Amino acid sequence: MADVEVRNFPLEFLRDFSKCVFIHFGVPEKDAILAASVLDASDRRGIDSHGVARLHTYFELLTEGRINPTPDISIVRETPSTATVDGDNGLGLVVGPWANEIAMEKAQEHGSGWVSVCNSNHFGIAGYYVLEALTRDLIGIAMTNSTKIVAPLWGAEPMLGTNPIAIAFPGKKEPPIVIDMATSTVAFGKVEIAWRSAQPVPDGWMIDGEGMGSNEPSDMLRGGALLPLGSDRLHGGHKGYCMATMVDILCCVLSGANCGPFAPPFTLRLETPDRSVGKGIGHFFGAMRIDGFIEPDEFKEQIDEWIRVFRATKPAPGTDGPLVPGDPEREAEKIRVQEGVPLVMPVIEDLREIANYTGVSFD
Amino acid sequence: MADVEVRNFPLEFLRDFSKCVFIHFGVPEKDAILAASVLDASDRRGIDSHGVARLHTYFELLTEGRINPTPDISIVRETPSTATVDGDNGLGLVVGPWANEIAMEKAQEHGSGWVSVCNSNHFGIAGYYVLEALTRDLIGIAMTNSTKIVAPLWGAEPMLGTNPIAIAFPGKKEPPIVIDMATSTVAFGKVEIAWRSAQPVPDGWMIDGEGMGSNEPSDMLRGGALLPLGSDRLHGGHKGYCMATMVDILCCVLSGANCGPFAPPFTLRLETPDRSVGKGIGHFFGAMRIDGFIEPDEFKEQIDEWIRVFRATKPAPGTDGPLVPGDPEREAEKIRVQEGVPLVMPVIEDLREIANYTGVSFD
Repeated sequence: MADVEVRNFPLEFLRDFSKCVFIHFGVPEKDAILAASVLDASDRRGIDSHGVARLHTYFELLTEGRINPTPDISIVRETPSTATVDGDNGLGLVVGPWANEIAMEKAQEHGSGWVSVCNSNHFGIAGYYVLEALTRDLIGIAMTNSTKIVAPLWGAEPMLGTNPIAIAFPGKKEPPIVIDMATSTVAFGKVEIAWRSAQPVPDGWMIDGEGMGSNEPSDMLRGGALLPLGSDRLHGGHKGYCMATMVDILCCVLSGANCGPFAPPFTLRLETPDRSVGKGIGHFFGAMRIDGFIEPDEFKEQIDEWIRVFRATKPAPGTDGPLVPGDPEREAEKIRVQEGVPLVMPVIEDLREIANYTGVSFD
Repeated sequence: MADVEVRNFPLEFLRDFSKCVFIHFGVPEKDAILAASVLDASDRRGIDSHGVARLHTYFELLTEGRINPTPDISIVRETPSTATVDGDNGLGLVVGPWANEIAMEKAQEHGSGWVSVCNSNHFGIAGYYVLEALTRDLIGIAMTNSTKIVAPLWGAEPMLGTNPIAIAFPGKKEPPIVIDMATSTVAFGKVEIAWRSAQPVPDGWMIDGEGMGSNEPSDMLRGGALLPLGSDRLHGGHKGYCMATMVDILCCVLSGANCGPFAPPFTLRLETPDRSVGKGIGHFFGAMRIDGFIEPDEFKEQIDEWIRVFRATKPAPGTDGPLVPGDPEREAEKIRVQEGVPLVMPVIEDLREIANYTGVSFD
């Protein structure tokens, strides 16, 4: 891969820039701070695809009036432990935290809270929401649907998003176990990296527009699709498809959002589907009180033990042994808090364009 | 593969046989009927590994006094929407339905119910529990840990069970979507079939005792392990490991059961781990009222639409297009209700041995 020019920016600087951009579009300051902090969580944890690198897409959609900067987010139905939230087409970065708050409050009051959300937009990283739950000693769960890019097993066209699932469990002396994963074999970002550097991708990542396995990233432009986790029938591709289905239904059918191929795209470059079967995209949040099951201290000590036992697993040849879910993001955070976030030139240029347009100073 | 002699037995006959065997060991008739019906659900749906073929293992454990035929199952802690159940070392086939009932009752009263279970044993197929939830118009979720047989990614030894996840969603005119999947690339049964017929298994299914990829089923006897869904790092093996971790923690750490490598084995042939960190094996059940989120009729119509849209996906070459989760099991059920359950000779011999020992007539 060719060297790419990279410049580091402090987390605080990027967060402040995002906040000012949101405010420019009429997002109330409190919401702008929140939205910027969701992007920051992604940059901080090394998930470059979901942080400030995506600000340009929010910027485009806000410019075109496709996102409501001042949504009237509301609960449209509820029981003591469940609710459906209508995001009024607000920023997912604002609607998501609002709905997650409802799930957490219900958990604190009734043991658990489960909230399905319609009429929202891209909500950042799923991990953000479960980290929020940890700050209240809750087990948090978050899922979202997204623009179609993944084929169901035995399908020859994209029908599902990468539909991530996140869940986190607190340790006592050890750091928490934090799971945050797409239900596709890989995220689109990995195909994009190969594409930019004109490299083929490995078998099992994607199909072309005819549904044949492909190693050519640009086939994604010609009707190709990512494969679900497991890749093919022999390796459990039906299971990745099942997990993506679960996310799609909990987020969209349960809330009245657009499921499967009907999810509106999160960029002006992709066409909006001809048909809509609901409102916006959907999310699903869960929160559970640990002391609704067991003494929290006992739970956390046992999580510590779990972590130590798994770290002591006999390592596979050529590896240092299993990681604990969340390790790579914690490593990234340690470095980025010190050294800032490395942005590649195309992202820097995107941010400069936003700065020019909005008058928010960038560099 | 060599031809294997097969004989078909009516579902009712097998269910009755199982029931009488359980009664022989002092299981109360009501519980024996329940336990037999859980095995029946597996035989009926074509999941041969979890039905009457497993009766011999329950028989062994009951014979050795390792399972309590008359458990005093109890709720040890609860909130309106959560609970922990202690199965008192009863049959998982009895403890599971008992705990699932609590989850469903809590859902009916408070919108959702979530129950973590310790001190249990093998609970049959996870699918049984979510089908029960469907009969009450609930969305059901079920998970369980099991004996270690799966390596975490980058590990060279088994540390986790195949840790399945099930969830089901009702349709209106279409049949329900029923997901029931192990979080390993394949279930052990598939390796066993290759083993019996002296065939190699495909790449990506398992490792040998040194942690190297293996195609030799008998390596499972020499410290080998199955791989998590995704198989290797390049294809998302860390994601299968994450899903198995989630199941392990919700089922075991949250309830106080034995997590990870400490799960007691479900057969006399495997050694019990030296160390115990909790009580028995663990399960996790969830149930949610659909009308806690949306009009159930609207939900079911949209599930019907989801099913039709996914069935109409452009098919991949050489396939008839994507299935809907639950299709293969429904197909199996149609046939088995008519023709009975095909049992191979080793299973028939196991059942004859049980018959001889217990005096319950078999054939």
